[in-house]
Amino acid sequence: MITKNTIKQIASLRQQKFRKELGLFVVEGRKMTEELLHSDFDTVELYATEAFLKDYPSFTSAEPVSEVQMQQMSGLDTPPGILAVVKIPKQGDINTQSRYVLALDGIANPGNMGTLIRTAEWFGIRDVVCSSDCVELWNPKVVQATMGSLFRVKVWSTDLVAYLRKAKNEGKAVYGALLEGENLFQLNEKPEGIIVIGSESHGIRTDVLPCITHPITIPHVGGSATESLNAAVAGAIIMAEMTR
Amino acid sequence: MITKNTIKQIASLRQQKFRKELGLFVVEGRKMTEELLHSDFDTVELYATEAFLKDYPSFTSAEPVSEVQMQQMSGLDTPPGILAVVKIPKQGDINTQSRYVLALDGIANPGNMGTLIRTAEWFGIRDVVCSSDCVELWNPKVVQATMGSLFRVKVWSTDLVAYLRKAKNEGKAVYGALLEGENLFQLNEKPEGIIVIGSESHGIRTDVLPCITHPITIPHVGGSATESLNAAVAGAIIMAEMTR
Repeated sequence: MITKNTIKQIASLRQQKFRKELGLFVVEGRKMTEELLHSDFDTVELYATEAFLKDYPSFTSAEPVSEVQMQQMSGLDTPPGILAVVKIPKQGDINTQSRYVLALDGIANPGNMGTLIRTAEWFGIRDVVCSSDCVELWNPKVVQATMGSLFRVKVWSTDLVAYLRKAKNEGKAVYGALLEGENLFQLNEKPEGIIVIGSESHGIRTDVLPCITHPITIPHVGGSATESLNAAVAGAIIMAEMTR
Repeated sequence: MITKNTIKQIASLRQQKFRKELGLFVVEGRKMTEELLHSDFDTVELYATEAFLKDYPSFTSAEPVSEVQMQQMSGLDTPPGILAVVKIPKQGDINTQSRYVLALDGIANPGNMGTLIRTAEWFGIRDVVCSSDCVELWNPKVVQATMGSLFRVKVWSTDLVAYLRKAKNEGKAVYGALLEGENLFQLNEKPEGIIVIGSESHGIRTDVLPCITHPITIPHVGGSATESLNAAVAGAIIMAEMTR
C-alpha cells in the first residue's frame, strides 16, 4: 500500500528543488512508460490505477493505486493512469566522436526543449549539449515533450561556451542560425559538426557567437513580415537539412 | 477609468464561450500589439500599465490601468503590461488562387497551432484551412504562439474533407505526411498545392486520407526509435522543403 507520505513526495517532484534533493523524476503515460522500461534508466517505482491495469494487464510490476491517489501524484490535468518514479542518471563525459551534436543555448520553454530532443533523435542525432541555464531536462513538461527520446538521446548540461570553444579549436564545424548567414538551402559544403540553436527570446548569445564557424540562415520567403521562427522549428529545419 | 465590470468581461475572454458571445479576443505584449495596430484588425480597446507607458510612451492610445487591474485582465502569469481587446473578424470565402495552402486536420495543441501559422508565414504561405475541430484561433495561447502572424495569415475553419475533396477534383496537389509515402527529400516533382498536417495523436484522419494525392514521408535516420515528429515540426520541415 502506498502511503500518504510517498504520495506527497512524488507530488513534490514537480518542483526542481525536490528533484535535485531526491535525485528522482517522474514519467507518465503508457507509451512513455513502455519506452522507459526498455531503456537503461533505473525505475524506482511504478504505479497504475486499477482501471489502467484492467486495460493493460501486461504492466505486472505496477503497484495498483486509486484514481484519487493517482490524481494527487500526477502533474498532468488528466492523469493517464500510469506513473513511474525514476532515478536521475549521473551525467558522464560528453561524447567527442559523434558526427552531429545539437547544442542548445538558453532554451527556456519546456515544450521546445523536449521537442528539440525528440527531433534530434528522428534525424539520428544522439548527443545534445545544453548551456547550464537551459530548462532542466527532468522538468515534467520537458520529459513529456520528448515523447520518450530522452531515454535514448544523451543530454548534457555544461558550460556551453567552453565546450564550443574547444570544439572550434579542434577544427570542428560549429553551425549557428543567425539573421546574417549563408542560405541553409544553398550551402556549398556541409561538414559534420555541431548545430547551435539559440533561445526563444535572445537567439544565440553574444558570448557564444565567436565559437560559430558556419553562420547559417533559414531563408524567408519574400514579403513575410514575421521576424523569426520558433526555436524548435528552426532547430528541426536545420537538423533535417544537415543530416539529409 | 476602467470599471470592475469591464475588467471582469476582459478576463472572461479567456474562455471560448465568452469570446464567441462577445465576438472579441485578447492580444498581449508590446510586439504583438504593435503588429496588431499595423494590421486590418479592429482594436476595440487598449490598456497599459503606467510602468509600461513610461517605458513606451508612443502607445498614446492606451488607457492607463494599475498593475493590479492588469493582473486581473491578463491571461498570462507575468502580464507584459499592455493588453488589447480586438474584434474577431468575419470569416470570408476561402482563397482559391493561392499557390500553397496549409491544411490542419484536428490540431488540438494551441502552441502547435500558433507555431504552424507563424511558420507558414515565414515560408510565404498566407492561407491556412482548419478542420472545424482544430483548437480555436482566438484562444490566447494560439494567439501568442503565432507571434503576430495571425494578423497577416488568413485562417479559415471549415469542413476540411469537403474542402480537400473539391480541391482534389479540381486537379490540385494535396500533400499529406504519412508513414508510407514518397521520401520528402527525393520528390521527382513538387507541384504547388495544399499541405495537410494531421493531429498530434491521430495523424491525418481516415476520412481525409482519400483526398491525399501525394503521400509523403519525412525520412527517419537509421536506428531512430522515435515513432513520430511533433506536428508543428513535421509541418515546418514539409513547408520548408515544398517552398524552397
